[in-house]
Amino acid sequence: MRSDYRLLRLAGPLLLLMLLAGCQSLTGPGDETAELRGTGDLGLVIERASGSVLVVDTTEKTVLGRVEGLGDLSHASVVYSRDGRYGYVFGRDGGLTKVDLLTRSIDQRIEQSGNSIGGAISQDGRYVAVSNYEPGGVKVFDSETLEQVANVPAEYEDEGGETRQSKTVGLVDAPGNRFVFSLFDAGEIWVLDMDTPEPEVTRYEAGKKPYDGLITGQGRYYIAGLFGEDGLSLLDLWNPEEGAQHILSDYGKGEERLPVYKMPHLEGWAIAGDRAFVPAVGAHEVLQVDMESWDLSERIPVQGQPVFVMASPDHRQIWVSFAHPRNDVVQVIDSQTSEIIRTLEPGEAVLHMEFSPRGETVWISARDSNRVTVYDTRTLEKITTLEAEKPSGIFFTSRAHRLGL
Amino acid sequence: MRSDYRLLRLAGPLLLLMLLAGCQSLTGPGDETAELRGTGDLGLVIERASGSVLVVDTTEKTVLGRVEGLGDLSHASVVYSRDGRYGYVFGRDGGLTKVDLLTRSIDQRIEQSGNSIGGAISQDGRYVAVSNYEPGGVKVFDSETLEQVANVPAEYEDEGGETRQSKTVGLVDAPGNRFVFSLFDAGEIWVLDMDTPEPEVTRYEAGKKPYDGLITGQGRYYIAGLFGEDGLSLLDLWNPEEGAQHILSDYGKGEERLPVYKMPHLEGWAIAGDRAFVPAVGAHEVLQVDMESWDLSERIPVQGQPVFVMASPDHRQIWVSFAHPRNDVVQVIDSQTSEIIRTLEPGEAVLHMEFSPRGETVWISARDSNRVTVYDTRTLEKITTLEAEKPSGIFFTSRAHRLGL
Repeated sequence: MRSDYRLLRLAGPLLLLMLLAGCQSLTGPGDETAELRGTGDLGLVIERASGSVLVVDTTEKTVLGRVEGLGDLSHASVVYSRDGRYGYVFGRDGGLTKVDLLTRSIDQRIEQSGNSIGGAISQDGRYVAVSNYEPGGVKVFDSETLEQVANVPAEYEDEGGETRQSKTVGLVDAPGNRFVFSLFDAGEIWVLDMDTPEPEVTRYEAGKKPYDGLITGQGRYYIAGLFGEDGLSLLDLWNPEEGAQHILSDYGKGEERLPVYKMPHLEGWAIAGDRAFVPAVGAHEVLQVDMESWDLSERIPVQGQPVFVMASPDHRQIWVSFAHPRNDVVQVIDSQTSEIIRTLEPGEAVLHMEFSPRGETVWISARDSNRVTVYDTRTLEKITTLEAEKPSGIFFTSRAHRLGL
Repeated sequence: MRSDYRLLRLAGPLLLLMLLAGCQSLTGPGDETAELRGTGDLGLVIERASGSVLVVDTTEKTVLGRVEGLGDLSHASVVYSRDGRYGYVFGRDGGLTKVDLLTRSIDQRIEQSGNSIGGAISQDGRYVAVSNYEPGGVKVFDSETLEQVANVPAEYEDEGGETRQSKTVGLVDAPGNRFVFSLFDAGEIWVLDMDTPEPEVTRYEAGKKPYDGLITGQGRYYIAGLFGEDGLSLLDLWNPEEGAQHILSDYGKGEERLPVYKMPHLEGWAIAGDRAFVPAVGAHEVLQVDMESWDLSERIPVQGQPVFVMASPDHRQIWVSFAHPRNDVVQVIDSQTSEIIRTLEPGEAVLHMEFSPRGETVWISARDSNRVTVYDTRTLEKITTLEAEKPSGIFFTSRAHRLGL
């Protein structure tokens, strides 16, 4: 779309051209009409069952429209172009869809593999990467055209000496136009550099069966959760030559006291100052971790098994969602006192939470109530609810400006 | 502008209306034609001598256009609407101009006082506040219309018991829709709450003659620089009942070893993890401060008197600009080792630096060379230069999503 406009601008005065073209150049390919507006207060809500997304406005707290035809969104996530106009939606079925939030339509869509588990956009916004299960590896695409620019098969030698391809997980972007991800089957963390003449991979030994990863807010520490052993693998990207360290050795299934309904996502780590608030595995607790020593400093009892544990942008509140069967409740913890200050009921099957960019509101999806509820973070009262079809993930365009997503 | 479009949408299909109106509704009031595009990668560069601003594109690294008629911009700053479409430019002459970056034109402009020193936008984006010298106080405006919604004269009793109005400085926004600012003449810090039925002020004793202020990234600590004594005043907004504390008691003119060419702005504090990198007053040093104890932990020698000391978004680099006569040089410090890793010469009279939202580039204005230079933060090499008329401040729309500006 944008390059079309450039051409128009080169060709002559827009007014004349628009009259000649019946003004159609300003109507998008979707059903909705494109509106001249900023994109900083927009977002997408995944409708997981119907393969559609809602475009929402975080200023007016309204739904602007729906975009359909995105395939299997049962485990979908979104990253944004630098300008906040385009959302890249990663579907469970390997689909990668570039959604234009202004025209509310699909700008590009490819089926890049059979089975994918999330993606990231490079620091400079030029590359979109997707981590795949089958065949295991990472593919990198031009963010403008979705043409493939790199294919990185996650090859490793198994115990019998055979070359195999590992499932890849926990893909994030890192400063310096790098991508970092983990190899579930190989037990490795890979750093993929997109600024070298040819994309270059550096490999690090990690723990057993990394199943997810996160990078801390400023992009320094990459942490992989381990399915094959207790503890976590930590790679300090400022000092990668030290290799991955094993931290929090009590963390994981070893501390399991109840059946685990869901391995918590590592995205569900809240980092507030020098402390991380982390969902315990299989316990009704949020763990507080000292990020200097990487030691467990406190266990905060909560009402169920936490899934997402998210810090408000001012780091003052920690919002916690829960696994089945206690997943109709959200609890809010004061990060200073570690006390639960409110228990809210946003609806049945709460799946995700997203703070408005500066944190005055939080948006919470309740899949089985078919709604998104918007709360005021100061009063902790409901402001409004929006109808949505089996909503799951909520992603605002301010993510375009953050590292490590 | 936006409400006009709403009305259009209510009235009927846009295509028809546009034909009727000759498509003029999509041309802005400025000279340039509005383009359907995202706003997340835009910014403004102040042209201080000509009362104009450049609209820039941080993806293409180009100038999109110029907006003129903004009055005295010799000490100007900018905050952004939630959607990133509008920049609020605070001029030295009390002018407040709302610039539409999409149509590249002035949307609103008022002369709100005779003499102002900066402004802020509330967490929810509804209010724009300006701190004034004369008459001393803070005025708050509706961000949509620029209509005044509150006037807070900075009244205090002087030693003789007379009521006076203090100059106000160091105005920032804080979480909970609050504004925080300092009273130069009264030696106080005020917190203005915009969420109470009537705007409500809480006053705190600060040190002597606070001349500027900053708030840390998550909006917890407000720090005022003191002109009347050494040290700084710190108000912990999580625990305001404790009052302002006096910290870093060696900081200030007391450590002056050379004539002070310019009191460093407090905006020129780089906060990286649990350390702050701070310009020394009158010395060729950057100070490193431990933010746990608020003690000075290291003095880093640099080539001149630092003015701006800014951390890259990944906190890995500290970029330092300098006062006259060493103001044609910028130095880059590695935040991990405290070593200077590069000395750059962006031009004569370097005035400001701004990182692209995720930090892959930094833009540096050189007033007397009439240019802005864009550097790659990984290679530390120049990428391009843009022509600008006596450029000073550079402000990108990603500021819309950050607290405490």
